Amino acid sequence: MTVEIVSENKSHGGRQLVVSHASTATSTEMSFSIFLPPQAEEGAKLPVVWFLSGLTCSAMNVTEKGEYRAACAKLGLVFVAPDTSPRGDHVPADPAGGWDFGLGAGFYVDATEEPFAKNYRMWTYITEELPALVEAEFPVDMGAQAITGHSMGGHGELTVALRSPGRFRSVSAFSPIAAPGQVAWGQKALRGYLGEDEKAWRKHDAVALIEDGARLPELLVDVGDADPFIENQLRPELLERACADAGIALKLRVQPGYDHSYYFISTFMAEHLAWHAERLRGA
Amino acid sequence: MTVEIVSENKSHGGRQLVVSHASTATSTEMSFSIFLPPQAEEGAKLPVVWFLSGLTCSAMNVTEKGEYRAACAKLGLVFVAPDTSPRGDHVPADPAGGWDFGLGAGFYVDATEEPFAKNYRMWTYITEELPALVEAEFPVDMGAQAITGHSMGGHGELTVALRSPGRFRSVSAFSPIAAPGQVAWGQKALRGYLGEDEKAWRKHDAVALIEDGARLPELLVDVGDADPFIENQLRPELLERACADAGIALKLRVQPGYDHSYYFISTFMAEHLAWHAERLRGA
Repeated sequence: MTVEIVSENKSHGGRQLVVSHASTATSTEMSFSIFLPPQAEEGAKLPVVWFLSGLTCSAMNVTEKGEYRAACAKLGLVFVAPDTSPRGDHVPADPAGGWDFGLGAGFYVDATEEPFAKNYRMWTYITEELPALVEAEFPVDMGAQAITGHSMGGHGELTVALRSPGRFRSVSAFSPIAAPGQVAWGQKALRGYLGEDEKAWRKHDAVALIEDGARLPELLVDVGDADPFIENQLRPELLERACADAGIALKLRVQPGYDHSYYFISTFMAEHLAWHAERLRGA
Repeated sequence: MTVEIVSENKSHGGRQLVVSHASTATSTEMSFSIFLPPQAEEGAKLPVVWFLSGLTCSAMNVTEKGEYRAACAKLGLVFVAPDTSPRGDHVPADPAGGWDFGLGAGFYVDATEEPFAKNYRMWTYITEELPALVEAEFPVDMGAQAITGHSMGGHGELTVALRSPGRFRSVSAFSPIAAPGQVAWGQKALRGYLGEDEKAWRKHDAVALIEDGARLPELLVDVGDADPFIENQLRPELLERACADAGIALKLRVQPGYDHSYYFISTFMAEHLAWHAERLRGA
């Protein structure tokens, strides 16, 4: 695999890269951002935090607005932010013209429905191709991985973590779509990518996965009580109930006054990273 | 004066606002961002840091990428970021189609040349109209002001501070255009807004102002040694020489590997804010 460094900027003592590469999973060019903290210059392999982004985002939203670099530099964490869908003129978009399906809205599944099945293979991209590429090209310790994400990305990373036991030392989320099979955003996407059979959706639904027996040792989740999507799309109470029933140690923090934006994410980013670092250190 | 709250987002315990208002200085609608830290909820008037932005920027660049809110929340600082020029379909742009003059490039002067003289009155806007509006509408202590800025904004705030003795308790800059009368960006702008008479330029040139007797007690400046504009447009060595000749305590830090971007600014933002807070506290 060859990667192209699209941009490199020194920041907080480390290096913020944007990287692109030809993806075999999606049959497109894909790009992601990766922050290498100052400790990476010393040659050691470092713990890595994956951040999956939400609807309409590319890697650049969290890269520009996420305020993660100061904490990653202090804690010695690599931070990787993938894109949210395949991109390109030949990649099919939402036939309805929406922003909640298609481009920027891959929902981290491998589509089986046409015309999406060829390119919309974000599950394989996130769980196989990208980790292999990052491990091959950058100084990351794949024995010390953490994962987090926002909204649609919170959905994505929870399902990845729940289906990959032991792979991540720690898991957290910002405002995740906790039960996509039960809400409009998720139903549109899962139906569009996976078809009408709702059984196929359960592997891409954190609450359903927990109900079906998947487990995590613990989970930190922040969500704002002024988030306009909390009631109809995020449904943190369903995650809370599923975790309680399953004995998963969920720390759900409902943050007063905060909304769904990066103004919210950036506020709690450093706390999430410190929480991950504590668990990665023992790795 | 009436102001319209364009957006409000809770962040780092405080409130990030974007505000617009009809400006008498520029005869246009103007917008700026203002962060009110959590301490503002307690009713006291707080110290205020002004940030003037660089070429092509609006208030949103530093608002999204500047990473100032965590430090302002900790230190109890209000942070105000104005726009860099008048805006609107009726506002004349660079006739040459450039990004370094006209829209997004007001250079913080009151233009005397046509067709710019009506709208391009950023000096009056920044030094009179906006401070009066912010004082009237928000809980700021105008006896405890600091000013900083980036690139063209570094130029702007240095000239404002040098021509307003005693107004600011502290002054710092990121990669300022130190001597606009001696570099291409500045010459194009000063000629375009103020005409051919270079004597008129000297009031809008930090190095010339210092040569002509203006003083500051001290000054903190960061600039990256990988900044592609350092040699031809920023010329920190001219500022260094002028400050040395004038007995101004300049702390010039040439930061290895850093460029001209917000990846650089955000790295040193918290240090600048701590430096300002130290001086504002005694106010």
